[in-house]
Amino acid sequence: MPNTESYPIHPIAHIHTDFAEKFGIPRQAGLVDALTARIVFTPEYRVAEAVRGIEQYSHLWLIWQFSREVGRPWHPTVRPPRLGGNTRVGVFATRSPCRPNALGLSSVRLTGVDTDAPDGPALIVAGADLLDGTPIFDIKPYLPYVDSHPDAAGGFSAATAGRRLAVDFPPKLLARVPQDKRAALTGVLAQDPRPGYQHDPGRVYAMSFAGLTVKFTVDDTSPDLRLTVVDIV
Amino acid sequence: MPNTESYPIHPIAHIHTDFAEKFGIPRQAGLVDALTARIVFTPEYRVAEAVRGIEQYSHLWLIWQFSREVGRPWHPTVRPPRLGGNTRVGVFATRSPCRPNALGLSSVRLTGVDTDAPDGPALIVAGADLLDGTPIFDIKPYLPYVDSHPDAAGGFSAATAGRRLAVDFPPKLLARVPQDKRAALTGVLAQDPRPGYQHDPGRVYAMSFAGLTVKFTVDDTSPDLRLTVVDIV
Repeated sequence: MPNTESYPIHPIAHIHTDFAEKFGIPRQAGLVDALTARIVFTPEYRVAEAVRGIEQYSHLWLIWQFSREVGRPWHPTVRPPRLGGNTRVGVFATRSPCRPNALGLSSVRLTGVDTDAPDGPALIVAGADLLDGTPIFDIKPYLPYVDSHPDAAGGFSAATAGRRLAVDFPPKLLARVPQDKRAALTGVLAQDPRPGYQHDPGRVYAMSFAGLTVKFTVDDTSPDLRLTVVDIV
Repeated sequence: MPNTESYPIHPIAHIHTDFAEKFGIPRQAGLVDALTARIVFTPEYRVAEAVRGIEQYSHLWLIWQFSREVGRPWHPTVRPPRLGGNTRVGVFATRSPCRPNALGLSSVRLTGVDTDAPDGPALIVAGADLLDGTPIFDIKPYLPYVDSHPDAAGGFSAATAGRRLAVDFPPKLLARVPQDKRAALTGVLAQDPRPGYQHDPGRVYAMSFAGLTVKFTVDDTSPDLRLTVVDIV
């Protein structure tokens, strides 16, 4: 039976991040705190008053659009990469982008409010897992007394949550990365940007980050799961 | 400048709660865990597969619609009731319903999946702060390793977060409330359902809950801020 009840929503802002492509974006917000992003309100909402008091909060919620998924047909199940890509899980039991209404939810850390910029007030945030240019539908303060449930059961995501790669970043390649982007890039690589089901030790992966192309290999046979950067162009 | 970028979203479910009116709904989710609600998927999404694995999570996120606010003009600032109703705060620094796109965000506790019901699979949740019949646009699992920030700074909401009223519920009135609704109703009353700026000790307030009308007074002059139930009809 088709769904006839429908409501229009519109972006109140767009976010500017170092990710021009999906490949490499951390799987959730907050995993790489060194990532910085800038939230610029659309002209209608570009009003200093609308963010008055927001600096009293350390974290914000963003409700946003998985813009590359809009209009795709929905499927009741998805295959999360972290489960190896073969196990089917109900879409509402995942944070998969392939979902009805294509809405994303991320908590980010607020590091500053850029009030005086020509496009201000803009919000500077850390840890965002969003594609550059992503439309944002809402920004809300994070309220720890109702939003924080440290003992919540984390389901199948919990098992692989803490996994990190050791990153081998040759100094002469690292020197090609702007100094203020190095920690963020290293953090992104440590998250293991490879698709969960693609573990080919001979393969050279290429990831876009902050206008650079980052090439790397991953040796799954080393005991510490080592990622090696082989080129930066 | 008008906003021309717009996207349609549609309800994937509706929630059934004991709140037929806004008055009395706790100000955030999770404040009254004894409240139970039932999430019924719209026919298109009423598929057992779509929630496969969801029972591995203890908490869920709901993204929903402040349905009574849809289409209202937006204002850059709001006056949160908890601040007495006189202090203006930027709309994006609050969880106010009066916001662009009228989207709500709540974390609820998943207590069961009603798979075999005629309208199943339905989700049974605790702590929902939603009006009966509220459209839900997305359901996501709560991931403690990325969603929980117990040390986040809570801004001005933190100051009044823990306030509770002592509830005086005469046994003969309590007996008129179905047994399985008593803890929830008492919990709702303890949250102080009055508007923040309305403190009239002589006034009899009337709140709708689970098909009942609950009448009460609040004595602000008593040292423990006492709410007394005076009638149940």
